[in-house]
Amino acid sequence: MVNLRQHRYTRDMFKHVVIQGVGLLGASLGLALKKRGLAGVVTGVGRTGSGSLETARGRGAIDHGSTDLAGAARGRHLSDQLPADLVVLCTPIRQFPEAMRALAPVLAPGTIVTDVGSTKGEVMAWAGQLLPEHVHFVGSHPMAGSEKSGPEAARDNLYENAVCLMCTPYHSGLGQVSDDGGAATAGKPAGYQEAFAKVRGLWRALGMRIIDLPAGMHDQWVATISHLPHAVAFALVATAARHPEMLEAVAGGFLDTTRVASSDAAMWTDIFLTNREALLAAIDAFSTDLQLLRCGIETGNDEAIRAFLTRAKSARDTLLAQREAAGLATRSNHGSPELPGRNR
Amino acid sequence: MVNLRQHRYTRDMFKHVVIQGVGLLGASLGLALKKRGLAGVVTGVGRTGSGSLETARGRGAIDHGSTDLAGAARGRHLSDQLPADLVVLCTPIRQFPEAMRALAPVLAPGTIVTDVGSTKGEVMAWAGQLLPEHVHFVGSHPMAGSEKSGPEAARDNLYENAVCLMCTPYHSGLGQVSDDGGAATAGKPAGYQEAFAKVRGLWRALGMRIIDLPAGMHDQWVATISHLPHAVAFALVATAARHPEMLEAVAGGFLDTTRVASSDAAMWTDIFLTNREALLAAIDAFSTDLQLLRCGIETGNDEAIRAFLTRAKSARDTLLAQREAAGLATRSNHGSPELPGRNR
Repeated sequence: MVNLRQHRYTRDMFKHVVIQGVGLLGASLGLALKKRGLAGVVTGVGRTGSGSLETARGRGAIDHGSTDLAGAARGRHLSDQLPADLVVLCTPIRQFPEAMRALAPVLAPGTIVTDVGSTKGEVMAWAGQLLPEHVHFVGSHPMAGSEKSGPEAARDNLYENAVCLMCTPYHSGLGQVSDDGGAATAGKPAGYQEAFAKVRGLWRALGMRIIDLPAGMHDQWVATISHLPHAVAFALVATAARHPEMLEAVAGGFLDTTRVASSDAAMWTDIFLTNREALLAAIDAFSTDLQLLRCGIETGNDEAIRAFLTRAKSARDTLLAQREAAGLATRSNHGSPELPGRNR
Repeated sequence: MVNLRQHRYTRDMFKHVVIQGVGLLGASLGLALKKRGLAGVVTGVGRTGSGSLETARGRGAIDHGSTDLAGAARGRHLSDQLPADLVVLCTPIRQFPEAMRALAPVLAPGTIVTDVGSTKGEVMAWAGQLLPEHVHFVGSHPMAGSEKSGPEAARDNLYENAVCLMCTPYHSGLGQVSDDGGAATAGKPAGYQEAFAKVRGLWRALGMRIIDLPAGMHDQWVATISHLPHAVAFALVATAARHPEMLEAVAGGFLDTTRVASSDAAMWTDIFLTNREALLAAIDAFSTDLQLLRCGIETGNDEAIRAFLTRAKSARDTLLAQREAAGLATRSNHGSPELPGRNR
């Protein structure tokens, strides 16, 4: 289900979009932009020799491939030398500073830079330090993805029916669904509000539901609802893998609970290291809850265990019902049984 | 993909199957037996007033419904008074002793009793104490299920392409894929070997891959690969539910990692309490692994984190490739996006 508001945006919302990093998220963004006619031209930027640019171009996710971010942003490779009006950072997070340094001297005033990074505190700080005032950095975190990686796994509907968290360092309110960027952008330079609204419009046009929240709160939220489940899934596999003979007997419970442990290790190292404080707090809160359940089991406390499980089940079932009512996905949006990807 | 060996079994492998408990597992078994013509008549046994028997009968999972297990096993409700030649226990585990006590005085010599319980140590001990020598109890654990419960959620393919663990207390070898019940049944009374082979044939005919292992080892395996992931999923939801505002931003990672936390609380209380020792050990091993990862994050040890994640990803990806090659499911076999069930 796509938000009806997308129709207020005309085709070619952006004239030249540069996507830095054409892995799963970058290539899926390119496919979605092309499918919906939201970008005049899309340039993908990648590393020499990775093969990702060729794959992304072959799949129609990008019009042009480049290994030179600054040159791509200046439009040097286009016949009309059209500079980028939107740059989207889609690499692992800790490569953002290098990209920002490369972009800083070449971006025209008013250029919008956004990202798809899973943490926001450090990212917003880097943008404040490394990008010039006349460039508008809008922090985005589309809560979409997969344990699969690379442009081979890209899908034009990856972002549909999911939530996009949007952050500004000047926003002090609580997390909320917002229709305009007013409160969120107070105090920023002229043009920032329009840039913020335009990025919001982009994610909306891709079928996402927007929630605004400040960067610090963003990082706490995702530590609990995303980074902690990933850490737990990796640890679950580590525990089971101590007994390889057991693995042949696993069922759907293990496979689903650990699905995200097949995610890209470099990407998740970056995420964990750029959200350390909040993630450590989330791991500790989880460990306390698990010990609470463990205590019920150790003491044979039937009622305590059942109450714990009932509360959890009830919270999850309520969440599913709410998402269902809101038209949001209630599980990862793989259409078919998972097959091992080619890009391990 | 169904094991070809099923074709060696003729229709009506059993003349009268009594299924004690017509929830998800029991009703799915009934549907599968009827679909494949493996049972002459199927009687479901349930509690008065639950509505499950009516639902199961309406869905074609059972031919007859009864609230009297002993009477059903004697075939009192059938015009030809055909006694059960197979009774399958499909209730929460801690109701098994009551069922065994009801069955003990009425089962004819040679009657086979099996179960679908998720723990085996206590179950095998109960069977040894409560069922007469002339009845053959074969401990089974089909590793199939869902977070949904009740006959409404039953499917005739629930058991396909999954593993069934089969236990006997006399089996001392390591867990292995076995083609006959010989080693597994040494020392048991006459007829036990045939009974064991017949139950194995039943699960095979439903499309399952069989692994034999002794009850104690079974309980250790499932503690790590099934009960631990369930405990962790319940605890993850408990942690996140402390911050209800965050829940509106969850994505596929959280939803899949916690899927099994929507499972039936009473059923899982029984499982946890009948596998205490092994589950406590698994929780402790997992907590150690999670703390190892936590330590890497706290100290900013880039390489340690990446190595931890890479090892887990590699183990899981290898597992998926092996299951794929063996024709086994690589995620829970829901065909479509999860919808909240009606039987909360």
